[in-house]
Amino acid sequence: MYDDSCVFCREIIKKRNAAFVYEDDDVVAFMDNAPIDNGHILVIPREHYQDIFSIDNDLYIKIYKTVKKLAPVLISSLNAQGLNISQNNGRAANQVVMHYHVHMIPRYNNSKLNMERHITDIKELEKTAVKIRAGVLNEES
Amino acid sequence: MYDDSCVFCREIIKKRNAAFVYEDDDVVAFMDNAPIDNGHILVIPREHYQDIFSIDNDLYIKIYKTVKKLAPVLISSLNAQGLNISQNNGRAANQVVMHYHVHMIPRYNNSKLNMERHITDIKELEKTAVKIRAGVLNEES
Repeated sequence: MYDDSCVFCREIIKKRNAAFVYEDDDVVAFMDNAPIDNGHILVIPREHYQDIFSIDNDLYIKIYKTVKKLAPVLISSLNAQGLNISQNNGRAANQVVMHYHVHMIPRYNNSKLNMERHITDIKELEKTAVKIRAGVLNEES
Repeated sequence: MYDDSCVFCREIIKKRNAAFVYEDDDVVAFMDNAPIDNGHILVIPREHYQDIFSIDNDLYIKIYKTVKKLAPVLISSLNAQGLNISQNNGRAANQVVMHYHVHMIPRYNNSKLNMERHITDIKELEKTAVKIRAGVLNEES
């Protein structure tokens, strides 16, 4: 399922306009382009599902297996001390892009624990993505 | 594994001092005693694991299967319009109780989307728990 009106289907999956850190046949992970903290990534299914209520059960489990695999990689590759994992469903819960996504937000001892977004550019994101990808490769080897 | 110094092991699992909404052999869900919004529950393993880095893989999947099962129940039983799902790892990420737990926070069109806690008592929580338990029974039947 592909939805051309969905910014993730179009820009991330189709046009690959993102700094990717992980990919397999069903799931991709990439740098959030307005990170809440350094190393903020999103884990999403390639296929379009809106939320936890509609996503396929097996795909949902694949997403969370990927989250668990990436969790220690974010910590070690970025020297983080904590990790917030969150997933919003519905506009009433502040879901902005209507393609299912899990936020993984590394936190640091000096982190301001707010949800403020930091607009950045893809070059800056790519510098962090390089470190995470090296961690993923190291994990898989 | 049981850790007497852990408030969830001692108060929730051993003393059952909570308003439960779901239980099986491995996983329990109960009302957060300082809810961020009406119907805020926590899903935890019976056994003590600290975080995503240490929790057993199969148990972790059981937790997220329970989360997916409870998600539509929270929406329908409480007439909610949204749902935040979050899980914090490490003090740097605002993990307060060091027993792995997933927050499920129903949201409403008039919700203030902050993380402010609302101190309440078990009688008040029990009123909401009754509605959720009815939803769980309905789901299982």
